[in-house]
Amino acid sequence: MKLYDFKGAPNPRRVRIFLAEKGISVPTQQVDLMAREQHGDEFRAVNPWCTLPVLELDDGTCIREAMAICRYLEATHPEPPLMGTTAIERATIDGWEHKLEIDGLLAVGEVLRNSVDRFAGRALPGPVGHEQIPAMADRGRRRIAYFMDLLNERLGESEHVAGPDFSAADVTALVAVDFAARVEGGIPDGHPNVKRWRETVGARPSAQA
Amino acid sequence: MKLYDFKGAPNPRRVRIFLAEKGISVPTQQVDLMAREQHGDEFRAVNPWCTLPVLELDDGTCIREAMAICRYLEATHPEPPLMGTTAIERATIDGWEHKLEIDGLLAVGEVLRNSVDRFAGRALPGPVGHEQIPAMADRGRRRIAYFMDLLNERLGESEHVAGPDFSAADVTALVAVDFAARVEGGIPDGHPNVKRWRETVGARPSAQA
Repeated sequence: MKLYDFKGAPNPRRVRIFLAEKGISVPTQQVDLMAREQHGDEFRAVNPWCTLPVLELDDGTCIREAMAICRYLEATHPEPPLMGTTAIERATIDGWEHKLEIDGLLAVGEVLRNSVDRFAGRALPGPVGHEQIPAMADRGRRRIAYFMDLLNERLGESEHVAGPDFSAADVTALVAVDFAARVEGGIPDGHPNVKRWRETVGARPSAQA
Repeated sequence: MKLYDFKGAPNPRRVRIFLAEKGISVPTQQVDLMAREQHGDEFRAVNPWCTLPVLELDDGTCIREAMAICRYLEATHPEPPLMGTTAIERATIDGWEHKLEIDGLLAVGEVLRNSVDRFAGRALPGPVGHEQIPAMADRGRRRIAYFMDLLNERLGESEHVAGPDFSAADVTALVAVDFAARVEGGIPDGHPNVKRWRETVGARPSAQA
């Protein structure tokens, strides 16, 4: 296996944390998003969607999209389970994971891609250029505020995002919270449960991935 | 089990098609999104995210997010398989399914929610109001064009979206293509593979769901 990766990007980090939790070591190839290598012919041959991460299997099959890769790893390396062990546990994790991707990761992306100079003309990932829409950056900040409130409320009633155990939902939440810190400078005041949880999950070796 | 549903909305339809393919009959409760029932106290007690669909299990557990529900149904009713039978098949289906949700369903939602009068102040689903951003409707139309091109190219090399067999990726693609027709008036010219595939999957009884 080989992981196409970029150290500074949130979606590859979801897979790196997942790999670390599973204790799987995989060679990585860095695709420099700053240099727009994802748009070059070499990487387009791997993934014409021009997105990271991609997991290339030994038979040449390329798995795209972060959570598709994580599900593959869960199926091929079931221990420790990060997506639950019963159908209900899995569904709870799946629901939270998806919700926090949309409301967290996408919201932060909306702010950064519509406000940071280097994303000018590249306001969405993928092969098609899109101009920035400044009003989307403002909307994204309001979305991050909702995401933080939602997560804080949830972590007031549950030790981890989807229940007592660390799961894929925590992986996405952790990456989203750290990604949001690029906009907010940290976890905003008034979110003590997020801070408590961030300290706990941040102490896991996988958080360094 | 009970499905909280609304006939006109795309995400509940993903689950209805899935149920029909599985041959599962479930009582449904309509939540009238036109009347904003999803924001009322009664439905907030079911799902404070104010989104559909929700699958309520007999023990009271509520599963939220369309694909989380579909994964639960796949686990509890494995036949016929709609998410692959090997880890690689599942990963291919997962990757396409997620990609087409983001690039298809979300793109159409971006157009409609930022341009149709009845979504004024409600440009995103969920409990928080957001004003419409007209430039997002224009961007969404360009995103739909990319989605259609991507799908047409894929269906030129594969009978169904994620391989030879009908899968969850076709469910999301079908719902997205029909949702896009509300913007485009139908499948745009120059997409013969999408048209061929739409006729094939549209002939399945589940397409009426």
